[in-house]
Amino acid sequence: MNICSYSFEEYFSLIKSFHGSTAPGIIIGGGMVDIALREMPENTLYDVLCETSACLPDAVQLLTPCTIGNGWLKIVNLGRFALTVYEKYQGRGIRAFLDAKKVKRWPEIESWYLRLKPKKEQDFKLLLAQIREAGTTICSLQEVTVSPQFRAKPKQNKAVTICPGCGEAFPAQTERFCEACRGHSPYLSFDFTNETTRQTAFS
Amino acid sequence: MNICSYSFEEYFSLIKSFHGSTAPGIIIGGGMVDIALREMPENTLYDVLCETSACLPDAVQLLTPCTIGNGWLKIVNLGRFALTVYEKYQGRGIRAFLDAKKVKRWPEIESWYLRLKPKKEQDFKLLLAQIREAGTTICSLQEVTVSPQFRAKPKQNKAVTICPGCGEAFPAQTERFCEACRGHSPYLSFDFTNETTRQTAFS
Repeated sequence: MNICSYSFEEYFSLIKSFHGSTAPGIIIGGGMVDIALREMPENTLYDVLCETSACLPDAVQLLTPCTIGNGWLKIVNLGRFALTVYEKYQGRGIRAFLDAKKVKRWPEIESWYLRLKPKKEQDFKLLLAQIREAGTTICSLQEVTVSPQFRAKPKQNKAVTICPGCGEAFPAQTERFCEACRGHSPYLSFDFTNETTRQTAFS
Repeated sequence: MNICSYSFEEYFSLIKSFHGSTAPGIIIGGGMVDIALREMPENTLYDVLCETSACLPDAVQLLTPCTIGNGWLKIVNLGRFALTVYEKYQGRGIRAFLDAKKVKRWPEIESWYLRLKPKKEQDFKLLLAQIREAGTTICSLQEVTVSPQFRAKPKQNKAVTICPGCGEAFPAQTERFCEACRGHSPYLSFDFTNETTRQTAFS
């Protein structure tokens, strides 16, 4: 069985170069993307929702046109190992999840999924072999409708203002200062360095 | 000038295949990743923080080992067009941002950045030519320290429980039911379909 348009080996090396390691979650996630997409009517314009930020989003970004940066992939962090491919405008879609009942047949997968033993005690080779043999038989599908407030929003052309605090542009409603300057900066300290020497044209 | 290890043309086609379109933000973002990385001491183990979910995260995911799925890329949505590459454990890093003052020299870039005209009135060809000529001269850098609470967290091996509502595993502290079953499901309705026929081994 292929994972979308890739063979298992191709997907495996794709994971390595993008995700850094061949994490079990992204291998299983690839199968979940594949079986969910197969159930969608052809030529559907779809978005994807991931119920965890761990691993699964990378499977989606590698196998579909949906990425975090283009807004077609959204993460709603519920901690469940599940993803939903859904029709962009009405929200009807297919949810694929790792099925705890089906996983029981594969002790090493179950142990990884339910964190029954510390990572260093896992038999990674056996885990990988079981994942490969199990394929998508450990997953289940559901028909769902994604609630409007959880669907990917079309890009809004909100007005942009220059913040008098930092001098940078931000999407303003009525606020004068940007969120960072209103006390939500993620930084401890600022030391402005004017590094213009490094900056050049692209070509 | 290259964008990390790619020529401008290579990066351009990489964007197209991953992000779907050659959005201005991801081209400029590529230059921001490049100049921020150049200022980091060699062999630093780094994570990345993006201050917007639009476009920039995809530049980071294409050019660095940091992705949403492996947890080394974090989005703190402040709506500012900025990213920070920082040393993983102490948080010291380099913030690159699109500089409103420097952008003034490039009317089409300024118009795009400050949303001075509707998208359909933008001259995309001219915008692209200006982005290419301006390169990273429209960006500025700052030395920052990312606050501990905003740094990417090392993966915690939280205990996992089966939710009696949905039957799926979730990371539990003291809760009996998962967040979705406690009223935060992103779905309107559930129709369980048992689609086992499609599921096969990977090979």
